[in-house]
Amino acid sequence: MPGPVQSIERAAAILRLLAQGSGRLGLTEIANSLGLARGTAHGILRTLQLVGFVEQDEATGKYQLGAALLHLGTSYLDVNELRSRAINWADALAARSGEAVRIGTHLQGKVLVVHHVFRPDDSLQTLDVGMLLPMHATAIGKVLLAYDANAAAAQQDAVQDGELEQFTRRTVRTRREMSRMLATVREHGWASDVDEAGMGEAGVAAPIRGYGGLVVGAMGISGATERICDSGGRPRPDLVGYVRDAARAVSRDLGASRW
Amino acid sequence: MPGPVQSIERAAAILRLLAQGSGRLGLTEIANSLGLARGTAHGILRTLQLVGFVEQDEATGKYQLGAALLHLGTSYLDVNELRSRAINWADALAARSGEAVRIGTHLQGKVLVVHHVFRPDDSLQTLDVGMLLPMHATAIGKVLLAYDANAAAAQQDAVQDGELEQFTRRTVRTRREMSRMLATVREHGWASDVDEAGMGEAGVAAPIRGYGGLVVGAMGISGATERICDSGGRPRPDLVGYVRDAARAVSRDLGASRW
Repeated sequence: MPGPVQSIERAAAILRLLAQGSGRLGLTEIANSLGLARGTAHGILRTLQLVGFVEQDEATGKYQLGAALLHLGTSYLDVNELRSRAINWADALAARSGEAVRIGTHLQGKVLVVHHVFRPDDSLQTLDVGMLLPMHATAIGKVLLAYDANAAAAQQDAVQDGELEQFTRRTVRTRREMSRMLATVREHGWASDVDEAGMGEAGVAAPIRGYGGLVVGAMGISGATERICDSGGRPRPDLVGYVRDAARAVSRDLGASRW
Repeated sequence: MPGPVQSIERAAAILRLLAQGSGRLGLTEIANSLGLARGTAHGILRTLQLVGFVEQDEATGKYQLGAALLHLGTSYLDVNELRSRAINWADALAARSGEAVRIGTHLQGKVLVVHHVFRPDDSLQTLDVGMLLPMHATAIGKVLLAYDANAAAAQQDAVQDGELEQFTRRTVRTRREMSRMLATVREHGWASDVDEAGMGEAGVAAPIRGYGGLVVGAMGISGATERICDSGGRPRPDLVGYVRDAARAVSRDLGASRW
Protein backbone atom coordinates (compact mmCIF):
# COMPACT_ATOMS: atom_id res chain seq x y z
CA MET A 1 0.00 0.00 0.00
CA PRO A 2 1.53 3.35 -1.01
CA GLY A 3 2.34 6.04 1.57
CA PRO A 4 0.68 9.45 1.57
CA VAL A 5 1.65 11.80 -1.25
CA GLN A 6 3.89 14.44 0.34
CA SER A 7 3.10 17.31 -2.03
CA ILE A 8 -0.64 16.89 -1.42
CA GLU A 9 -0.11 16.89 2.35
CA ARG A 10 1.93 20.07 2.02
CA ALA A 11 -0.69 21.68 -0.22
CA ALA A 12 -3.35 20.89 2.40
CA ALA A 13 -1.17 22.37 5.14
CA ILE A 14 -0.81 25.61 3.12
CA LEU A 15 -4.59 25.81 2.67
CA ARG A 16 -5.18 25.22 6.39
CA LEU A 17 -2.66 27.95 7.17
CA LEU A 18 -4.41 30.40 4.83
CA ALA A 19 -7.74 29.60 6.52
CA GLN A 20 -6.36 30.93 9.80
CA GLY A 21 -5.80 34.48 11.02
CA SER A 22 -6.03 37.31 8.54
CA GLY A 23 -6.17 34.92 5.60
CA ARG A 24 -3.48 36.67 3.55
CA LEU A 25 0.16 35.58 3.66
CA GLY A 26 3.33 36.19 1.68
CA LEU A 27 5.54 33.42 0.24
CA THR A 28 8.20 33.78 2.96
CA GLU A 29 5.66 33.64 5.79
CA ILE A 30 4.12 30.48 4.31
CA ALA A 31 7.46 28.78 3.72
CA ASN A 32 8.70 29.64 7.22
CA SER A 33 5.48 28.61 8.98
CA LEU A 34 5.61 25.15 7.43
CA GLY A 35 9.38 24.70 7.40
CA LEU A 36 9.53 24.46 3.61
CA ALA A 37 12.17 25.80 1.23
CA ARG A 38 10.91 28.91 -0.58
CA GLY A 39 11.18 27.17 -3.97
CA THR A 40 9.14 24.20 -2.77
CA ALA A 41 6.44 26.43 -1.29
CA HIS A 42 6.38 28.50 -4.47
CA GLY A 43 5.87 25.47 -6.72
CA ILE A 44 2.97 24.24 -4.57
CA LEU A 45 1.39 27.72 -4.43
CA ARG A 46 1.63 28.16 -8.20
CA THR A 47 -0.12 24.82 -8.72
CA LEU A 48 -2.80 25.68 -6.14
CA GLN A 49 -3.31 28.96 -7.99
CA LEU A 50 -3.61 27.12 -11.31
CA VAL A 51 -6.44 24.92 -9.95
CA GLY A 52 -8.22 27.87 -8.31
CA PHE A 53 -7.58 26.85 -4.68
CA VAL A 54 -5.41 29.90 -4.05
CA GLU A 55 -5.47 33.47 -5.37
CA GLN A 56 -2.64 35.97 -5.39
CA ASP A 57 -3.31 39.63 -4.74
CA GLU A 58 -1.78 41.58 -7.61
CA ALA A 59 -0.94 44.64 -5.57
CA THR A 60 0.71 42.98 -2.56
CA GLY A 61 1.72 39.59 -4.00
CA LYS A 62 0.13 37.92 -0.95
CA TYR A 63 -1.72 34.64 -1.22
CA GLN A 64 -5.27 33.88 -0.03
CA LEU A 65 -7.78 31.05 -0.45
CA GLY A 66 -9.34 30.72 -3.91
CA ALA A 67 -12.85 30.60 -5.31
CA ALA A 68 -12.79 26.91 -6.30
CA LEU A 69 -12.81 25.98 -2.60
CA LEU A 70 -16.18 27.67 -2.11
CA HIS A 71 -17.75 25.49 -4.75
CA LEU A 72 -16.18 22.34 -3.29
CA GLY A 73 -17.31 23.33 0.20
CA THR A 74 -20.93 23.76 -0.81
CA SER A 75 -20.77 20.59 -2.90
CA TYR A 76 -19.71 18.79 0.29
CA LEU A 77 -22.90 20.05 1.95
CA ASP A 78 -24.97 18.76 -0.98
CA VAL A 79 -23.78 15.17 -0.50
CA ASN A 80 -23.64 15.29 3.30
CA GLU A 81 -26.21 12.73 4.39
CA LEU A 82 -26.20 13.81 8.04
CA ARG A 83 -27.22 17.30 6.97
CA SER A 84 -29.82 16.31 4.39
CA ARG A 85 -31.52 13.87 6.78
CA ALA A 86 -31.46 16.40 9.60
CA ILE A 87 -32.76 19.55 7.87
CA ASN A 88 -36.47 19.01 8.57
CA TRP A 89 -35.89 17.83 12.14
CA ALA A 90 -33.65 20.85 12.78
CA ASP A 91 -36.38 23.23 11.57
CA ALA A 92 -38.89 21.50 13.84
CA LEU A 93 -36.53 21.68 16.82
CA ALA A 94 -35.97 25.42 16.28
CA ALA A 95 -39.74 26.01 16.09
CA ARG A 96 -40.42 23.90 19.19
CA SER A 97 -37.61 25.28 21.36
CA GLY A 98 -37.62 28.84 20.07
CA GLU A 99 -33.81 28.68 19.89
CA ALA A 100 -31.11 28.43 17.22
CA VAL A 101 -30.22 24.88 16.18
CA ARG A 102 -26.80 23.69 15.03
CA ILE A 103 -25.59 20.33 13.79
CA GLY A 104 -21.91 19.55 14.10
CA THR A 105 -19.43 16.88 13.18
CA HIS A 106 -15.81 16.33 14.20
CA LEU A 107 -13.02 17.95 12.16
CA GLN A 108 -9.41 18.01 13.32
CA GLY A 109 -10.08 18.37 17.02
CA LYS A 110 -12.89 20.91 16.59
CA VAL A 111 -16.62 20.91 15.88
CA LEU A 112 -17.45 21.72 12.26
CA VAL A 113 -20.93 23.27 11.95
CA VAL A 114 -22.64 21.61 8.95
CA HIS A 115 -26.12 23.03 9.50
CA HIS A 116 -27.54 26.03 11.32
CA VAL A 117 -31.15 27.13 11.73
CA PHE A 118 -31.61 30.65 13.04
CA ARG A 119 -33.58 31.31 16.20
CA PRO A 120 -37.14 31.88 15.00
CA ASP A 121 -37.41 35.59 15.70
CA ASP A 122 -36.44 38.73 13.80
CA SER A 123 -33.08 39.25 15.51
CA LEU A 124 -29.94 39.72 13.44
CA GLN A 125 -28.01 36.43 13.27
CA THR A 126 -25.03 35.28 11.20
CA LEU A 127 -24.76 31.88 9.57
CA ASP A 128 -22.37 29.56 11.42
CA VAL A 129 -22.16 26.86 8.72
CA GLY A 130 -18.49 26.06 8.06
CA MET A 131 -17.36 27.51 11.39
CA LEU A 132 -15.17 25.57 13.80
CA LEU A 133 -16.23 25.52 17.47
CA PRO A 134 -14.13 24.42 20.45
CA MET A 135 -14.99 20.88 21.54
CA HIS A 136 -14.51 21.15 25.31
CA ALA A 137 -16.62 24.30 25.73
CA THR A 138 -19.72 23.48 23.68
CA ALA A 139 -22.51 20.96 24.23
CA ILE A 140 -22.15 19.63 20.67
CA GLY A 141 -18.39 19.23 21.14
CA LYS A 142 -18.81 17.41 24.45
CA VAL A 143 -21.16 14.92 22.82
CA LEU A 144 -18.60 14.25 20.09
CA LEU A 145 -15.82 13.87 22.70
CA ALA A 146 -17.95 11.47 24.72
CA TYR A 147 -18.98 9.21 21.84
CA ASP A 148 -16.66 9.71 18.84
CA ALA A 149 -13.31 7.97 19.35
CA ASN A 150 -11.58 9.99 16.60
CA ALA A 151 -12.75 13.26 18.10
CA ALA A 152 -11.55 12.21 21.55
CA ALA A 153 -8.15 11.17 20.20
CA ALA A 154 -7.72 14.46 18.34
CA GLN A 155 -8.58 16.41 21.49
CA GLN A 156 -6.19 14.24 23.53
CA ASP A 157 -3.38 15.22 21.14
CA ALA A 158 -4.31 18.87 21.39
CA VAL A 159 -4.14 19.11 25.17
CA GLN A 160 -1.16 16.82 25.74
CA ASP A 161 1.11 19.63 26.74
CA GLY A 162 -1.13 21.91 28.69
CA GLU A 163 -4.43 23.23 29.80
CA LEU A 164 -7.53 23.56 27.70
CA GLU A 165 -8.26 26.96 26.25
CA GLN A 166 -10.27 29.12 28.64
CA PHE A 167 -13.14 31.16 27.20
CA THR A 168 -14.72 32.06 30.54
CA ARG A 169 -13.95 31.20 34.14
CA ARG A 170 -16.42 28.31 33.81
CA THR A 171 -14.71 26.60 30.86
CA VAL A 172 -13.44 23.10 31.72
CA ARG A 173 -9.75 23.53 32.45
CA THR A 174 -7.99 20.23 33.13
CA ARG A 175 -8.09 16.78 31.60
CA ARG A 176 -9.32 15.36 34.89
CA GLU A 177 -12.29 17.74 34.91
CA MET A 178 -12.90 16.79 31.32
CA SER A 179 -13.01 13.04 31.90
CA ARG A 180 -15.41 13.53 34.78
CA MET A 181 -17.60 15.70 32.58
CA LEU A 182 -17.56 13.18 29.73
CA ALA A 183 -18.53 10.35 32.07
CA THR A 184 -21.58 12.43 33.03
CA VAL A 185 -22.42 13.02 29.38
CA ARG A 186 -22.30 9.27 28.69
CA GLU A 187 -24.40 8.54 31.76
CA HIS A 188 -27.13 11.05 30.82
CA GLY A 189 -26.99 10.68 27.06
CA TRP A 190 -26.81 14.43 26.44
CA ALA A 191 -24.49 17.36 27.16
CA SER A 192 -24.79 21.03 28.02
CA ASP A 193 -22.61 24.12 28.22
CA VAL A 194 -23.57 26.94 30.56
CA ASP A 195 -21.48 30.13 30.43
CA GLU A 196 -18.53 28.02 29.24
CA ALA A 197 -18.06 29.19 25.64
CA GLY A 198 -19.11 32.74 26.49
CA MET A 199 -20.74 34.36 29.50
CA GLY A 200 -24.51 34.46 29.10
CA GLU A 201 -24.51 31.72 26.45
CA ALA A 202 -25.73 28.17 26.96
CA GLY A 203 -26.43 25.08 24.89
CA VAL A 204 -27.82 21.55 25.02
CA ALA A 205 -26.90 18.75 22.58
CA ALA A 206 -27.49 15.06 21.96
CA PRO A 207 -25.75 12.48 19.77
CA ILE A 208 -26.81 11.57 16.24
CA ARG A 209 -26.12 7.94 15.43
CA GLY A 210 -25.77 6.44 11.99
CA TYR A 211 -26.16 2.96 10.59
CA GLY A 212 -24.88 0.48 13.16
CA GLY A 213 -25.30 2.91 16.04
CA LEU A 214 -21.99 4.79 15.68
CA VAL A 215 -22.16 8.48 16.60
CA VAL A 216 -21.71 10.53 13.41
CA GLY A 217 -22.54 13.98 14.74
CA ALA A 218 -24.41 15.98 17.33
CA MET A 219 -27.40 18.27 17.25
CA GLY A 220 -28.17 21.00 19.72
CA ILE A 221 -29.75 24.30 20.59
CA SER A 222 -27.90 27.37 21.81
CA GLY A 223 -29.00 30.71 23.13
CA ALA A 224 -29.08 33.02 26.12
CA THR A 225 -28.41 31.26 29.44
CA GLU A 226 -31.53 32.77 31.05
CA ARG A 227 -33.72 31.19 28.36
CA ILE A 228 -31.95 27.79 28.17
CA CYS A 229 -31.59 27.28 31.93
CA ASP A 230 -34.03 27.27 34.83
CA SER A 231 -33.65 29.38 37.96
CA GLY A 232 -31.23 26.79 39.41
CA GLY A 233 -28.83 27.32 36.50
CA ARG A 234 -29.57 23.92 34.92
CA PRO A 235 -30.84 23.31 31.38
CA ARG A 236 -34.64 23.24 31.31
CA PRO A 237 -35.86 19.61 31.15
CA ASP A 238 -38.41 20.41 28.42
CA LEU A 239 -35.65 21.77 26.16
CA VAL A 240 -33.44 18.76 26.88
CA GLY A 241 -36.34 16.54 25.89
CA TYR A 242 -36.88 18.38 22.59
CA VAL A 243 -33.18 18.11 21.69
CA ARG A 244 -33.01 14.40 22.51
CA ASP A 245 -36.17 13.65 20.56
CA ALA A 246 -34.89 15.50 17.50
CA ALA A 247 -31.48 13.79 17.59
CA ARG A 248 -33.17 10.42 17.97
CA ALA A 249 -35.42 11.12 15.00
CA VAL A 250 -32.44 12.00 12.79
CA SER A 251 -30.62 8.86 13.97
CA ARG A 252 -33.59 6.74 13.00
CA ASP A 253 -33.64 8.34 9.54
CA LEU A 254 -29.94 7.58 9.19
CA GLY A 255 -30.58 3.91 9.87
CA ALA A 256 -29.65 3.63 13.54
CA SER A 257 -31.96 0.90 14.76
CA ARG A 258 -32.43 1.28 18.49
CA TRP A 259 -32.55 5.05 18.88
CA MET B 1 10.60 28.55 -12.42
CA PRO B 2 9.29 25.10 -11.45
CA GLY B 3 6.40 23.49 -13.36
CA PRO B 4 3.08 22.65 -11.72
CA VAL B 5 3.12 19.77 -9.22
CA GLN B 6 1.41 16.87 -10.99
CA SER B 7 0.02 15.11 -7.93
CA ILE B 8 -1.66 18.32 -6.73
CA GLU B 9 -3.23 18.86 -10.16
CA ARG B 10 -4.52 15.28 -10.07
CA ALA B 11 -5.84 15.71 -6.54
CA ALA B 12 -7.72 18.84 -7.65
CA ALA B 13 -9.15 16.96 -10.64
CA ILE B 14 -10.45 14.22 -8.31
CA LEU B 15 -12.10 16.81 -6.06
CA ARG B 16 -13.71 18.52 -9.06
CA LEU B 17 -14.98 15.15 -10.25
CA LEU B 18 -16.50 14.39 -6.84
CA ALA B 19 -18.22 17.81 -6.86
CA GLN B 20 -20.18 16.75 -9.95
CA GLY B 21 -23.19 14.48 -10.37
CA SER B 22 -24.20 12.29 -7.46
CA GLY B 23 -21.05 13.14 -5.52
CA ARG B 24 -20.14 9.53 -4.66
CA LEU B 25 -17.73 7.52 -6.77
CA GLY B 26 -15.79 4.26 -6.50
CA LEU B 27 -12.03 3.95 -7.03
CA THR B 28 -12.38 2.42 -10.49
CA GLU B 29 -14.79 5.11 -11.69
CA ILE B 30 -12.43 7.84 -10.48
CA ALA B 31 -9.33 6.23 -12.02
CA ASN B 32 -11.10 5.64 -15.35
CA SER B 33 -12.63 9.12 -15.53
CA LEU B 34 -9.25 10.77 -15.14
CA GLY B 35 -7.16 8.21 -17.05
CA LEU B 36 -5.12 7.31 -13.99
CA ALA B 37 -3.77 3.92 -12.93
CA ARG B 38 -5.80 2.49 -10.03
CA GLY B 39 -2.74 2.51 -7.75
CA THR B 40 -2.03 6.18 -8.51
CA ALA B 41 -5.63 7.19 -7.90
CA HIS B 42 -5.68 5.17 -4.68
CA GLY B 43 -2.55 6.86 -3.31
CA ILE B 44 -4.00 10.30 -4.00
CA LEU B 45 -7.39 9.39 -2.50
CA ARG B 46 -5.80 8.01 0.66
CA THR B 47 -3.84 11.24 1.11
CA LEU B 48 -6.94 13.36 0.45
CA GLN B 49 -8.75 11.28 3.06
CA LEU B 50 -5.91 11.82 5.54
CA VAL B 51 -6.21 15.61 5.22
CA GLY B 52 -10.02 15.55 5.43
CA PHE B 53 -10.70 16.59 1.81
CA VAL B 54 -12.31 13.23 0.99
CA GLU B 55 -14.38 10.77 3.00
CA GLN B 56 -14.94 7.11 2.28
CA ASP B 57 -18.32 5.54 2.96
CA GLU B 58 -17.71 2.49 5.14
CA ALA B 59 -20.59 0.48 3.75
CA THR B 60 -20.05 1.01 0.02
CA GLY B 61 -16.35 1.98 -0.10
CA LYS B 62 -17.29 4.95 -2.31
CA TYR B 63 -15.54 8.27 -2.00
CA GLN B 64 -17.15 11.69 -1.48
CA LEU B 65 -15.98 15.21 -0.62
CA GLY B 66 -14.78 15.73 2.95
CA ALA B 67 -15.62 18.08 5.80
CA ALA B 68 -12.35 20.06 5.69
CA LEU B 69 -13.45 21.56 2.36
CA LEU B 70 -16.49 23.16 3.98
CA HIS B 71 -14.30 25.02 6.43
CA LEU B 72 -11.91 26.14 3.66
CA GLY B 73 -14.86 27.26 1.52
CA THR B 74 -16.36 29.45 4.21
CA SER B 75 -12.90 30.77 5.10
CA TYR B 76 -12.61 31.86 1.47
CA LEU B 77 -15.79 33.88 1.92
CA ASP B 78 -14.37 35.51 5.06
CA VAL B 79 -11.37 36.95 3.19
CA ASN B 80 -13.24 37.71 -0.05
CA GLU B 81 -13.02 41.49 -0.36
CA LEU B 82 -15.58 41.70 -3.15
CA ARG B 83 -18.15 40.05 -0.92
CA SER B 84 -17.35 41.97 2.26
CA ARG B 85 -17.45 45.33 0.47
CA ALA B 86 -20.68 44.41 -1.31
CA ILE B 87 -22.79 43.03 1.55
CA ASN B 88 -24.42 46.30 2.61
CA TRP B 89 -25.01 47.46 -0.96
CA ALA B 90 -26.55 44.09 -1.82
CA ASP B 91 -28.97 44.37 1.10
CA ALA B 92 -29.93 47.87 -0.02
CA LEU B 93 -30.43 46.73 -3.63
CA ALA B 94 -32.71 43.87 -2.51
CA ALA B 95 -34.77 46.29 -0.41
CA ARG B 96 -35.01 48.87 -3.19
CA SER B 97 -35.80 46.45 -6.03
CA GLY B 98 -37.83 43.92 -4.04
CA GLU B 99 -35.88 41.12 -5.78
CA ALA B 100 -33.18 38.60 -4.89
CA VAL B 101 -29.61 39.86 -5.32
CA ARG B 102 -26.60 37.77 -6.31
CA ILE B 103 -22.95 38.64 -6.68
CA GLY B 104 -20.83 36.43 -8.90
CA THR B 105 -17.26 36.00 -9.98
CA HIS B 106 -15.69 33.87 -12.71
CA LEU B 107 -14.64 30.29 -11.93
CA GLN B 108 -13.58 27.83 -14.62
CA GLY B 109 -15.94 29.03 -17.33
CA LYS B 110 -18.91 29.48 -14.98
CA VAL B 111 -20.28 32.08 -12.61
CA LEU B 112 -19.54 31.31 -8.96
CA VAL B 113 -22.14 32.88 -6.64
CA VAL B 114 -20.24 34.45 -3.72
CA HIS B 115 -23.15 36.31 -2.14
CA HIS B 116 -26.92 35.97 -2.24
CA VAL B 117 -29.58 38.10 -0.59
CA PHE B 118 -33.06 36.59 -0.58
CA ARG B 119 -35.98 38.42 -2.14
CA PRO B 120 -37.44 40.46 0.72
CA ASP B 121 -40.67 38.53 1.20
CA ASP B 122 -41.66 35.41 3.09
CA SER B 123 -41.34 33.00 0.18
CA LEU B 124 -39.25 29.83 0.50
CA GLN B 125 -35.83 30.38 -1.10
CA THR B 126 -32.60 28.37 -1.08
CA LEU B 127 -29.17 29.85 -0.67
CA ASP B 128 -27.23 29.95 -3.95
CA VAL B 129 -23.82 30.79 -2.44
CA GLY B 130 -21.22 28.38 -3.85
CA MET B 131 -23.39 27.47 -6.83
CA LEU B 132 -22.11 27.61 -10.39
CA LEU B 133 -24.33 29.34 -12.97
CA PRO B 134 -23.95 29.17 -16.77
CA MET B 135 -22.23 32.24 -18.15
CA HIS B 136 -24.04 32.64 -21.47
CA ALA B 137 -27.57 32.40 -20.03
CA THR B 138 -27.38 34.72 -17.03
CA ALA B 139 -27.04 38.49 -16.78
CA ILE B 140 -24.16 38.16 -14.28
CA GLY B 141 -22.38 35.73 -16.58
CA LYS B 142 -22.81 37.97 -19.62
CA VAL B 143 -21.25 40.86 -17.73
CA LEU B 144 -18.25 38.69 -16.84
CA LEU B 145 -17.94 37.48 -20.45
CA ALA B 146 -18.11 41.05 -21.72
CA TYR B 147 -15.50 42.52 -19.37
CA ASP B 148 -13.36 39.73 -17.84
CA ALA B 149 -10.76 38.43 -20.30
CA ASN B 150 -10.16 35.22 -18.33
CA ALA B 151 -13.87 34.43 -18.22
CA ALA B 152 -14.18 35.04 -21.96
CA ALA B 153 -11.21 32.81 -22.71
CA ALA B 154 -12.57 30.00 -20.53
CA GLN B 155 -15.94 30.21 -22.29
CA GLN B 156 -14.20 30.25 -25.68
CA ASP B 157 -12.48 26.96 -24.77
CA ALA B 158 -15.77 25.48 -23.61
CA VAL B 159 -17.69 26.14 -26.82
CA GLN B 160 -14.90 25.48 -29.30
CA ASP B 161 -16.44 22.29 -30.54
CA GLY B 162 -20.11 23.03 -30.57
CA GLU B 163 -23.15 24.96 -29.59
CA LEU B 164 -23.81 26.54 -26.24
CA GLU B 165 -25.98 24.62 -23.80
CA GLN B 166 -29.67 25.38 -24.33
CA PHE B 167 -31.82 25.90 -21.23
CA THR B 168 -34.81 27.36 -23.06
CA ARG B 169 -35.54 28.20 -26.69
CA ARG B 170 -34.38 31.74 -25.93
CA THR B 171 -30.88 30.80 -24.71
CA VAL B 172 -28.10 32.22 -26.90
CA ARG B 173 -27.09 29.38 -29.18
CA THR B 174 -24.13 30.26 -31.40
CA ARG B 175 -20.86 32.08 -30.93
CA ARG B 176 -21.94 34.68 -33.47
CA GLU B 177 -25.09 35.46 -31.46
CA MET B 178 -22.95 35.62 -28.39
CA SER B 179 -20.47 38.15 -29.73
CA ARG B 180 -23.32 40.35 -30.91
CA MET B 181 -24.89 40.10 -27.46
CA LEU B 182 -21.61 40.94 -25.69
CA ALA B 183 -21.08 43.98 -27.91
CA THR B 184 -24.49 45.24 -26.73
CA VAL B 185 -23.55 44.60 -23.11
CA ARG B 186 -20.36 46.65 -23.52
CA GLU B 187 -22.26 49.42 -25.26
CA HIS B 188 -24.92 49.69 -22.56
CA GLY B 189 -22.77 48.87 -19.54
CA TRP B 190 -25.20 46.29 -18.19
CA ALA B 191 -26.68 42.91 -19.17
CA SER B 192 -29.97 41.09 -18.85
CA ASP B 193 -31.37 37.60 -19.30
CA VAL B 194 -35.05 37.16 -20.10
CA ASP B 195 -36.42 33.61 -20.20
CA GLU B 196 -32.92 32.39 -21.15
CA ALA B 197 -31.83 30.43 -18.06
CA GLY B 198 -35.38 29.24 -17.37
CA MET B 199 -38.79 30.20 -18.72
CA GLY B 200 -40.39 32.85 -16.54
CA GLU B 201 -37.06 33.90 -15.01
CA ALA B 202 -35.21 37.12 -15.74
CA GLY B 203 -32.23 39.07 -14.42
CA VAL B 204 -30.30 42.30 -14.75
CA ALA B 205 -26.62 42.74 -13.83
CA ALA B 206 -23.83 45.31 -13.94
CA PRO B 207 -20.05 45.06 -13.58
CA ILE B 208 -18.15 45.54 -10.33
CA ARG B 209 -14.73 47.06 -10.87
CA GLY B 210 -11.79 46.87 -8.51
CA TYR B 211 -8.69 48.96 -8.02
CA GLY B 212 -7.49 50.18 -11.42
CA GLY B 213 -10.90 49.71 -13.03
CA LEU B 214 -10.61 45.98 -13.85
CA VAL B 215 -13.89 44.06 -13.63
CA VAL B 216 -13.68 41.66 -10.65
CA GLY B 217 -17.28 40.48 -10.51
CA ALA B 218 -20.87 41.29 -11.31
CA MET B 219 -23.92 42.11 -9.24
CA GLY B 220 -27.49 41.60 -10.27
CA ILE B 221 -31.09 40.98 -9.42
CA SER B 222 -33.13 38.00 -10.56
CA GLY B 223 -36.77 37.08 -10.31
CA ALA B 224 -39.97 36.45 -12.21
CA THR B 225 -39.95 37.84 -15.76
CA GLU B 226 -43.27 39.64 -15.25
CA ARG B 227 -41.80 41.59 -12.33
CA ILE B 228 -38.36 42.31 -13.85
CA CYS B 229 -39.64 43.27 -17.32
CA ASP B 230 -42.14 45.84 -18.57
CA SER B 231 -45.05 45.03 -20.88
CA GLY B 232 -42.71 45.16 -23.89
CA GLY B 233 -40.61 42.33 -22.46
CA ARG B 234 -37.64 44.58 -21.63
CA PRO B 235 -36.05 45.03 -18.19
CA ARG B 236 -37.70 47.89 -16.33
CA PRO B 237 -35.49 51.02 -16.52
CA ASP B 238 -35.94 51.78 -12.81
CA LEU B 239 -34.59 48.31 -11.88
CA VAL B 240 -31.67 48.67 -14.30
CA GLY B 241 -30.86 51.98 -12.62
CA TYR B 242 -30.90 50.44 -9.14
CA VAL B 243 -28.58 47.61 -10.22
CA ARG B 244 -26.12 49.96 -11.92
CA ASP B 245 -26.07 52.33 -8.94
CA ALA B 246 -25.39 49.47 -6.52
CA ALA B 247 -22.59 47.98 -8.67
CA ARG B 248 -21.03 51.42 -9.02
CA ALA B 249 -21.16 51.95 -5.24
CA VAL B 250 -19.38 48.63 -4.60
CA SER B 251 -16.77 49.49 -7.25
CA ARG B 252 -16.07 52.79 -5.55
CA ASP B 253 -15.64 51.00 -2.21
CA LEU B 254 -13.19 48.60 -3.88
CA GLY B 255 -11.08 51.52 -5.06
CA ALA B 256 -12.20 51.87 -8.67
CA SER B 257 -11.80 55.58 -9.30
CA ARG B 258 -14.14 56.64 -12.08
CA TRP B 259 -17.16 54.44 -11.43
